[in-house]
Amino acid sequence: MRPKHRILRLLCDEGPLSRAEIGDRLGLPRTRVVADLERLTAGGLVQAAGSAASRGGRRSTLVEVHPDIRFAGIDLGVTSIDIEITDGRLKPIAAFGEAADVRSGPKNVLSRVNAIMAKLRAEGAYERLNGIGIGVPGPVSFRDGVPVSPPIMPGWDRYPVRELLAREHNCPVVVDNDVNIMAMGERCAGIARSAENVLFVKIGSGVGCGIFIGGELYRGPDGCAGDIGHIQVELDDPMCTCGHTGCLEALFSGIALERDATVAGRSGTSTALAERLATRGSVTAKDVAECAADGDTVATRLIRDGGGRLGSVLAGLVSFINPSMIVIGGGLAGLGHVLLGEVRSAVYRRSLPLATGNLPVVLSELGARAGVAGASFLASDLAFAEAAV
Amino acid sequence: MRPKHRILRLLCDEGPLSRAEIGDRLGLPRTRVVADLERLTAGGLVQAAGSAASRGGRRSTLVEVHPDIRFAGIDLGVTSIDIEITDGRLKPIAAFGEAADVRSGPKNVLSRVNAIMAKLRAEGAYERLNGIGIGVPGPVSFRDGVPVSPPIMPGWDRYPVRELLAREHNCPVVVDNDVNIMAMGERCAGIARSAENVLFVKIGSGVGCGIFIGGELYRGPDGCAGDIGHIQVELDDPMCTCGHTGCLEALFSGIALERDATVAGRSGTSTALAERLATRGSVTAKDVAECAADGDTVATRLIRDGGGRLGSVLAGLVSFINPSMIVIGGGLAGLGHVLLGEVRSAVYRRSLPLATGNLPVVLSELGARAGVAGASFLASDLAFAEAAV
Repeated sequence: MRPKHRILRLLCDEGPLSRAEIGDRLGLPRTRVVADLERLTAGGLVQAAGSAASRGGRRSTLVEVHPDIRFAGIDLGVTSIDIEITDGRLKPIAAFGEAADVRSGPKNVLSRVNAIMAKLRAEGAYERLNGIGIGVPGPVSFRDGVPVSPPIMPGWDRYPVRELLAREHNCPVVVDNDVNIMAMGERCAGIARSAENVLFVKIGSGVGCGIFIGGELYRGPDGCAGDIGHIQVELDDPMCTCGHTGCLEALFSGIALERDATVAGRSGTSTALAERLATRGSVTAKDVAECAADGDTVATRLIRDGGGRLGSVLAGLVSFINPSMIVIGGGLAGLGHVLLGEVRSAVYRRSLPLATGNLPVVLSELGARAGVAGASFLASDLAFAEAAV
Repeated sequence: MRPKHRILRLLCDEGPLSRAEIGDRLGLPRTRVVADLERLTAGGLVQAAGSAASRGGRRSTLVEVHPDIRFAGIDLGVTSIDIEITDGRLKPIAAFGEAADVRSGPKNVLSRVNAIMAKLRAEGAYERLNGIGIGVPGPVSFRDGVPVSPPIMPGWDRYPVRELLAREHNCPVVVDNDVNIMAMGERCAGIARSAENVLFVKIGSGVGCGIFIGGELYRGPDGCAGDIGHIQVELDDPMCTCGHTGCLEALFSGIALERDATVAGRSGTSTALAERLATRGSVTAKDVAECAADGDTVATRLIRDGGGRLGSVLAGLVSFINPSMIVIGGGLAGLGHVLLGEVRSAVYRRSLPLATGNLPVVLSELGARAGVAGASFLASDLAFAEAAV
């Protein structure tokens, strides 16, 4: 990381600092800091921010990231668009979310994205953007900024998402998958801030994992690391969307839980789920969570079974990668402590004692905000890197 | 890595080079190279090595690692000690192996190690050592240089292996587990030389995995990454040495294969194994390999079943970590292409197509030498790092 990039990152993370503090913190010579700050000021990225409290001698001037800097974090889900605008310190300025169907194709979805951005801009959230981060629900070539053979995103294969957004908004754009941006959110602003080797497990419509190794997001040579939803946990049934049988996400995911809850409601084994099914015509993971909280045994059983299955996969991954923290996020993290208890139980029972002695297994801290927070962070890192050249 | 460390590594890997070549290859200023080489020459680590072919101007002097440099690579197995002495370019000078029982305790085993070293020294393999690398068949605290709660090494828990060897041989010593040193051997001198993200799977008495991420050996925060032998593959039987049931190595490993081959011999389902059992009183993995090569169906079946089980675990790990190469090593790699075929089949069938498109699954190139080769490499890296301070 170049010195100017490190200076911007430090000011973004910590707020106004004096030149001397910047030099001390980054181990850079004073002359270097002064020269770099001059160029960053000229580029509109930092500005003077008043005087520091005196340390005995001359009062020193503080510098800060420019208050006009804006980043956009965009989280495209299978059925939603969420956008957050932040300032240069990644503090949220404005946010907007709406339902959307990623299967309606990239033109429709990106024109909705641009319409929401225009609305946020008209409301004064930003004048110009310094960077955009966007997550999509499928595999991405991080280098090329395009989705690659995404199974549930018809029409998106190699669609130039980065190029089109960059042209439209005239700023650098970074494209990643939805799990990685959520993992990044928890790592830079959530519960995993101080952990270096982290597994972030997203349980939403599908199941995926973001991996931090030595503090860095690990994407793998083909960019598809963390695809744990298709790890086989049963020999035969059920059939998965991928065409194989017995995949983790065919057994436990938002889609699997809705399927199992519908069966339990139809067959009447759960009266609570049967009532909701009769009233609304369908039941969701949220219904299962609420019925379980109300004491419905079958709903609780569904969560326990799913958590046990997820836990047995994670137990194997813990033995393999020896992480320092596991974070459970995504919509089904709302199943809460029943789910967490089962996952913990399986991990602590089956993994090597040495690997679980200091291993927290915790719920996401940022919840639904994790994705946009991580996307904004990626946007800031790209913008800072480009400004440092 | 400090410049002097990088210079030593380059000369070790590539042999005699001119000052200009060293500067070009490492991007170091000529004056820096000259000053560093002077200090390394004074320290007895490099020496002049004649003149290079003229490039038109003055003939330039070559430098090389000092021909008196010696490293020792030690591979302690459950039932064996293997030692190799190399020169400063990691070329083998002498080697010796003998049967030993790691369960006889650290004093016995290390006194045998020292006796073998004395013999090799008396034969002229070395006068003094610049570094020792040693691998042991159990978990190791890499930082402290001691085994940690090794399940099959009674008396070794926190035994000061590094300290005692360093005092005895008056050189820096690095201690790691046996799987990591074998993985390191394949990465620095074997089939994985050009791969950055590698899984090296050792199948011996037990099963373990060495992991390279971005070219670096990944040990995990507790040093126990790669413990894949205890990933659960069956719900119930068989009981594993770890006290759980259905672990991979309880189903497929040297010990499991001997158990299953003995059953097949006793019950007479395999006449070939029955004959060997009657003649010798026991059968080993080698017998299974030989019987399979001779066309015995039951022996072939045992290898296929084991390979399929290993493959299903590896398929999950491929989806998770998206490696660029898988190397199969250890004693059971001798089961050869029948084993490899089953592993490949399971991995290619079950993992994400994107992750297996460019994924070679191959047998170890160094075979039984992988451990000592990797240990010598670790020794050289430690010695070079200490010389560069």
